[in-house]
Parts: sequence; structure tokens; C-alpha cells
Amino acid sequence: MSTKAYAAQTAKTPLAPFTLERRAVGANDVAIDILFCGVCHSDLHTARGEWGGVKFPSVPGHEIVGRVTQAGGNVKNFKVGDIVGVGCMVDSCRTCPSCKDGLEQYCEGPDGFTGTYNGTMSGRGDNTFGGYSTDIVVDQHFVLKINHDESDLAGVAPLLCAGITTWSPLRHWNVGPGKKVGIVGIGGLGHMGIKLAHALGAHVVAFTTSESKRQAALDLGADEVVISKNSADMKKHALSFDFILNTVAAPHNLDAFMALLKRDGTMTLVGVPSEPHPSPFVGNLIFKRRQLAGSLIGGIPETQEMLDFCAKHNITADIEMIKMQDIENAYERMLKSDVKYRFVIDMNSLKTA
Amino acid sequence: MSTKAYAAQTAKTPLAPFTLERRAVGANDVAIDILFCGVCHSDLHTARGEWGGVKFPSVPGHEIVGRVTQAGGNVKNFKVGDIVGVGCMVDSCRTCPSCKDGLEQYCEGPDGFTGTYNGTMSGRGDNTFGGYSTDIVVDQHFVLKINHDESDLAGVAPLLCAGITTWSPLRHWNVGPGKKVGIVGIGGLGHMGIKLAHALGAHVVAFTTSESKRQAALDLGADEVVISKNSADMKKHALSFDFILNTVAAPHNLDAFMALLKRDGTMTLVGVPSEPHPSPFVGNLIFKRRQLAGSLIGGIPETQEMLDFCAKHNITADIEMIKMQDIENAYERMLKSDVKYRFVIDMNSLKTA
Repeated sequence: MSTKAYAAQTAKTPLAPFTLERRAVGANDVAIDILFCGVCHSDLHTARGEWGGVKFPSVPGHEIVGRVTQAGGNVKNFKVGDIVGVGCMVDSCRTCPSCKDGLEQYCEGPDGFTGTYNGTMSGRGDNTFGGYSTDIVVDQHFVLKINHDESDLAGVAPLLCAGITTWSPLRHWNVGPGKKVGIVGIGGLGHMGIKLAHALGAHVVAFTTSESKRQAALDLGADEVVISKNSADMKKHALSFDFILNTVAAPHNLDAFMALLKRDGTMTLVGVPSEPHPSPFVGNLIFKRRQLAGSLIGGIPETQEMLDFCAKHNITADIEMIKMQDIENAYERMLKSDVKYRFVIDMNSLKTA
Repeated sequence: MSTKAYAAQTAKTPLAPFTLERRAVGANDVAIDILFCGVCHSDLHTARGEWGGVKFPSVPGHEIVGRVTQAGGNVKNFKVGDIVGVGCMVDSCRTCPSCKDGLEQYCEGPDGFTGTYNGTMSGRGDNTFGGYSTDIVVDQHFVLKINHDESDLAGVAPLLCAGITTWSPLRHWNVGPGKKVGIVGIGGLGHMGIKLAHALGAHVVAFTTSESKRQAALDLGADEVVISKNSADMKKHALSFDFILNTVAAPHNLDAFMALLKRDGTMTLVGVPSEPHPSPFVGNLIFKRRQLAGSLIGGIPETQEMLDFCAKHNITADIEMIKMQDIENAYERMLKSDVKYRFVIDMNSLKTA
């Protein structure tokens, strides 16, 4: 299936039109007409070769929402016309303990999970091409059902990465009523963290370095906002948090947040900094039995759970829609944090180009 | 009660004979004739003023075993002649959530718990004097029952700090049959970690930098020994540990151990390094949802549980007995790790001096 896409041919060249071949629809496959694709920081890092091991040409995009156009003979849960999503993964070994636990993102198979882009299909070695394209063919196991109103679909796309990346740790660390939860950073991930933690019933405190984001954080559902540069305000929250979700990938002082956790509290990081954070003070761990943890996107069952929860609670990402042709400009604005809070590509712009 | 002791008068002077006054035995107090006192690295750091806030004169010692000589009117569980222990704490607020949970070491009261030495008695402000002395008076809540054979009591003393410091995290992180557990460092703490994890039924792997400690670790109960400098041997254990207890306080590369944890595995630190560890790689946390944690000694109920477990399983520390007068020499040997694995002071040496 010949498919229109946007690709980076090298780390130094801008994304530009590209034609790729999608595989024929197999018995377990679902073919999807892509309606919207969110723009994640990982897309930019990959397209520009900032992470090691990028295979070019590279077609990014792993926040995909579209409509089923074809379903293989073994496909059970999807039929032509259904609205579906595809996130960061399109395959995994299916047999390791993590896959069996529905945590395919931690797949312990020889190649780990197969990324939706820049991934290696097991046993084949070819590069995977992501959602900056008009169509995609994905094994049914990695296709998610979308129950939102069709008018909301652009805002659903970012749930497939930004949404699940925050949902998975919030659920794993039992965020809910009676819990005081911090969300550090109010960007693509953080704004979803605030919405989801709020909808889960927790008392949500948003941390930002920027006074200008205070009202926006409250509007997103935060009960309180703390300017993390203000150490007096930070101290007022010492020893009070059950859980802190830290979405900031830039190197920063983790200790300021660790000190806010209760005994047995956990702070979970979801971003790998380009340079290490200053080494965290071990005393903060020992003297209150605190934990510093990490979490990676989410498994397929919990992604479906998140999508269903979001449909029920009318939760979508706050987005700015762009055309495929404007992707490089969007990347530049992302680098300046000039987006509230996620760019989403209207794939019609590519289909009609 | 006038009591013989050994004290550092300043950070620069060696420990020397000192006479102190123990308080009169109150209704809730137990007076104890000290038989043995273990020698912990904290003693040395405190006596030499290497940690901030040391009040001099300083009488260290918080691994105390002795015989009850007097019991106040409200004392329920101890009578004259009983063999008892006192560990790192002699008081706490008793009302905060941690105290109510029996985790007095994490006391959230205004002064935290009161250390057995260099502690501030609540509302009084005076310095506490530890176990390098012939007698001590302690509130019954902080007195532990010792059920070991009387011939084993010298080896019981280190259980009150080295034992509980390793027991508490082993229990908190559910070490037991079917679990693969690493113990990093084979010193005063590590040798207890190996013994306890083994007795709890786990598969125990001891990590040491020194080939010369291999047989000793096996003798202590390790199922396997890995020389942590040997990266090929380390790699064989990648992704295989449920839990790692890291007893090494010297700054070192935590990543080498984090990479050995399974998904959802935890490495717990029990020592605060004088300089920070190299900043741990966040990817090790994120890509397998691992946790880096800390743990501080243990609460009174779990200390009693540990002592009872050790009595039942005939577990004591491996010790070298010294006289009180040899303490400075013992400190010098500790600094060279020249002890297997804990010095214990025979307090008779002070009584008869």
C-alpha cells in the first residue's frame, strides 16, 4: 500500500514529503486511515538524530487516531469504520513476563518492544514508520478502541503517548481520593498529569517555575500551584506528598521535590535528561524511606483503560492543530515551550496536498 | 546514678574515661547494667565530630545488651534480671503517624526520634549518652527483650543497629522464598544482610569488590558471590534481582547495580555517602520502572520481631571482642575495614578498670 508521509532523510534535513509502502494487511492486522497524529518531543529528537541509533529515512509520530479501513480475518475487536488509536508500540515479544503482564513497554524479549517509528520488526530488521503518514497497518493487539465523540478526536491523539505516560504511573502508585499528588512541569505530559490526577480524585498540586502558568494550571484542574523557585512556598509542603510525578526532562534539582514527600512517598520520573540531574541527596531517601522511580509510557491494557476513563470523563489533551507542512515550525515552537500543550497534525493536510 | 563511661571531650581528643549521671529510674523506666556494646561506624563519626551538630562530651554506643537492675512502677514487660537490648533510639514523640505505625525511626515530631547518644531529650534539651558506659536508664518503650542464650549475648549487641538496619528493608520489600536478593558490601551491615536474607529463605547474592571475601560471604550464607568490579560477571545477572540492599556508604556507581534489577525491582541504600554518588542514570529507572530507595534503622516492633527471629534461627553477628580501653585502636582498624565484622566492647573491662 503506497502511503504519503513526511520523513527526515537525514538528521540534518527538514521533514519533507516521502512515499512509503505499508505492508499488506495480514490476518491479525488492522489498516487505519490516519485522521490525527500528535507531535511528541520524541519525534523531534528522533528526526534530528539527537538520540543514538536513528534509522533514516525517519517517519515520526506515535499519537495516532484514525479510522479502520480494513481488518484481517483473525481480527476480533475492530471492524471497518471504527475509530481507533495507535500509541508508541506496534509489536513486542508477547511471551516474556512483562508482555504476559500486559506491560509490553517493558518487554524483555531480545529486541524489547517495537516502536511505532524507528523500531525494528522482530525477525525482519526493517525500520518502522510512524504516524506522520496517511495510513498505517498495525497488529490488532496494539490497536486501541476510541470511544470519544468524533468531534474530540484531535485532542484524543496525545492521549496515546502523553496521556498514557502520565496515567500509568498515577495508577501504579495508587493515586486517587485522599492522596496528595504533585505534578512537576506543565507541558505536554504535565498538563495531562494534572487532568488525570484530578479526575482520579486526588488533591493535585502543580509545580512550575513560571508564575505565568499559575492560572492555566488551575484551569487544568490543579487544586494548588507552587512556584518551585520559591523555596519558602516549597517548604510549606514539606513531608506532605504521597506521590510526585515529575515530567521535566531537563536536568534539575530533584532534592527540592524529594523533601516534599511523606515517609514512604515516591517521586517518579518520566523523562531522561540529556545530561544527568544533580545527584540526589541520599539522606532524603533514607530518613523518610522515600523512593525515586521511573516509568515508561504504558502497556496496552492500561492504555485502553486510560482511553475509556478519558472518554467517560470527557478528557482530551489541550491542543493546537497544525498542517503536516508546518511541522518544522511546530518543532521550533516546541523547543521554546510555545505550545498549549500539544501540537496535533490534521492528516487531511497531507492527504489533500 | 553515677556511671562510668568513655567519652570524647572534643572532636580532636581520643575517647577517655568519663563519669556521667544517669537519671533516677522513673515509673516507665528500666535501668540496665550494660554487658556488651557494639561499635558502629556512627560512633566514630560522632566522636570525631565528622557529622554536624555533635554535642561534647560525647559518649557513643547504640548496640547495647544488658541486664535489668531496676524497673519503674509502670513497667510491664521487664523485670529485674531480664536480658534486654537498646538500639539507636531512646525516645520519640509517640503521637505522629510514624510513631503510631511503630516506625519511630521516622518520627515526625518536632525533634524526630531521640538518639541513644547525641540525642536531645524532648523538652529538656540535654545531651543523651550512649552505651560506652556501665549503666543506662531507658523508657520501657525503647527496651527490647532478648531471648538468645546468655552465651551468645556479645554477638547479639550488633543486632540492635546493624541487624535492624538490614532487617527492616529486607522485610519492607518482602524478601523471602522465591526472591533473588543482592547484598552489596560485606561489612558490619552487609554480613548481617546476608545472614538475614538467607534465613528469610531468599536466594542471596553477595557483591564485593574483593575476591578475598568470596569464601567468607559463602560461609555467611550467600548462595552466590559476584565481584562487582568484574563487568562480565555483573552482566550475567542483568535484570534478575527482585531487591538489592546496598550497604556501601562510600560514593560508588549505583548504575552497575540498578541494571541488575528486574522490572519493578528496588535497590535500597542504608548509608549516606560523605560525597554524593555519581548521579544515577535515569534511564535505568524509567526503562524498567525500577526504584532507588533508602531505609533508616528500624522501628521498635520490627526490632523485637528481628530479635525474636534471630533467637529462633540462632543468628548473631560475627564479632571481635575488645576492651573499652582499646576503642581508639578499634576505630583505626574499622577505618581499614580490618574487622570481621563488628567490634563489641566487653563492658566488664570498664567496670573493673
